[in-house]
Amino acid sequence: MRARVRITLKDGILDPQGKAIAQALGRLGFEGVEAVRQGKYIEIELAETNHVKARAQVEDMCAQLLANTVMEEYSVEVDG
Amino acid sequence: MRARVRITLKDGILDPQGKAIAQALGRLGFEGVEAVRQGKYIEIELAETNHVKARAQVEDMCAQLLANTVMEEYSVEVDG
Repeated sequence: MRARVRITLKDGILDPQGKAIAQALGRLGFEGVEAVRQGKYIEIELAETNHVKARAQVEDMCAQLLANTVMEEYSVEVDG
Repeated sequence: MRARVRITLKDGILDPQGKAIAQALGRLGFEGVEAVRQGKYIEIELAETNHVKARAQVEDMCAQLLANTVMEEYSVEVDG
C-alpha cells in the first residue's frame, strides 16, 4: 500500500520559508496570494496490505520519526 | 481558496533523503517499508474565488517558481 504524509507547521508557528515564497510570488507578479505555508510531503510504500494497520503504522512513524510533534502536525492518507 | 501543492522528485531521480528515512525507519523497528520518497508540500491561500482560475494560477506558480521541472513533478488540489 502507498501512504502519503503531509507534515506542516502548527498554526501559530512562524514559517519563514512560506513567507519567502509568498514574497517571491508577489515579485513574479502573482496577485491575491494571501498566505503560504511550506511543509514536507513523504510517500511510503508499505508491504502491509491491511488498510487500518497500514495507517496505524504510518501514524506511529510520524510520531516517532517523521514529524516534530512539538511544532508540526501531520496528516496521513493511505490508498490501495 | 486554498490550494495544496505536492512536489516530488520524478521517477528515476535519486532521492537520498527518502533513502535515509527508509533506513531510519528500519532501525526503529518498522518492518515492510519498501520505499520512501520525500518531497515538498505547500499550502497557498488565494484571493481568487474561481476554482478553474485558481488552479491555473497555482500551476503557473509551480512551473515558474515552486518546482524545478527538470527534476520534479507537481500536483495541485484546490478546495473551497
